[in-house]
Amino acid sequence: MEIKVMKNIMDANGRLAEVNRALFRERNLAAVNVMGSPGAGKTSILIKVMGLLRNKIGFCVIEGDIASDIDAQLIDGMGISVVQINTGGGCHLDANMINSVIDRQKSFKNSILFIENVGNLVCPSSFDLGENCKMVVASVPEGHDKPYKYISMFETADIIVLNKIDLIPYVGFDRPYFYKGLSAVNGKAPVFEISCRTGEGLDSLAGWMQDKMADLIISRSVLVRTEGMR
Amino acid sequence: MEIKVMKNIMDANGRLAEVNRALFRERNLAAVNVMGSPGAGKTSILIKVMGLLRNKIGFCVIEGDIASDIDAQLIDGMGISVVQINTGGGCHLDANMINSVIDRQKSFKNSILFIENVGNLVCPSSFDLGENCKMVVASVPEGHDKPYKYISMFETADIIVLNKIDLIPYVGFDRPYFYKGLSAVNGKAPVFEISCRTGEGLDSLAGWMQDKMADLIISRSVLVRTEGMR
Repeated sequence: MEIKVMKNIMDANGRLAEVNRALFRERNLAAVNVMGSPGAGKTSILIKVMGLLRNKIGFCVIEGDIASDIDAQLIDGMGISVVQINTGGGCHLDANMINSVIDRQKSFKNSILFIENVGNLVCPSSFDLGENCKMVVASVPEGHDKPYKYISMFETADIIVLNKIDLIPYVGFDRPYFYKGLSAVNGKAPVFEISCRTGEGLDSLAGWMQDKMADLIISRSVLVRTEGMR
Repeated sequence: MEIKVMKNIMDANGRLAEVNRALFRERNLAAVNVMGSPGAGKTSILIKVMGLLRNKIGFCVIEGDIASDIDAQLIDGMGISVVQINTGGGCHLDANMINSVIDRQKSFKNSILFIENVGNLVCPSSFDLGENCKMVVASVPEGHDKPYKYISMFETADIIVLNKIDLIPYVGFDRPYFYKGLSAVNGKAPVFEISCRTGEGLDSLAGWMQDKMADLIISRSVLVRTEGMR
């Protein structure tokens, strides 16, 4: 019985995720679902990447947190459009929450849309938001064993960021062990090793974001123009 | 409707938690529900504390993980009785899982029972396991803003451990800000600042565990003996 209820919830979420996918396409949004543990550095990464690319690409952000608007305020301080979702205890964002925001925020278009999920290495991986790309942020002090324990999260990732590599000398992080676990569950997602503190690796990550996500936006615009010419 | 289902689940969990509470008393187990983010250092802390106290107090452990038995193997390697629960995707332990283990493990008695929950700063705080004490592990690299964002977890804690304080110089952790957020949601739980790497603070933490948890075990034994004399 409990399983049936869960299935109904997931079906409903899946249907709304499809609605979102169509909306993202219509608005020309390249949506990135950013997931990871509490304190892995999700917000810091977004701030750094947007700082590097904002002269070239438009950005908008949905911030998911159980409580507080600490992260949204940081992004608002950059002059980037941001909406805060407080889940009020909920451990993940779902397609319905995203749908409500997109529906109201007409200014969200022709941009990369970062959706920062609730800090949680478990539940968010089960909820499709209609995103174009799932980005999973791991961080060095969390330890090298995370891909072995949180399989679903690493399995579903389209891109993986390993943050806080400046702390490797202080915490005994075993890189080969981390990558061995990762390759067992996800052999195709590119991995970017970075440090938001030192700036190491951020250019490469921003480069990927520009290549993949900005290109998605541009190719759609071209498509729309071509279709309009017919 | 969804809320009603959730309420039924929580009622059922609450009833089983009471059964567990009675079982813990009967077996003279002082049960500690250990919660925190992935990689906060829950297992390392248990290993260090058990190492310091095992000549004075008995220990047994339930390890909760979505997948793998990495942590259980470490504890088994110490020669301490341990049972692994794999939730297979589930984001928290519940009273029923603990009940099944206690029911089968007749050797679990007259000890401190550490129940290491799934690494998750959200969901486990909602599920009473029948424990005598909730221990929440935060860690420095997760950042000083966690008590502001994950209120329920910090609110329900009976004891809070701040791990990895050796990393403070490298990550810009703002102690006053952390404690300000903490005091807003939990004014009574003692906080132990420790580092499993350097050993700092571990004696005090082990001392608390001995005072509070071992005393609980002893006082019950005395009670049983006194009642037996009547």
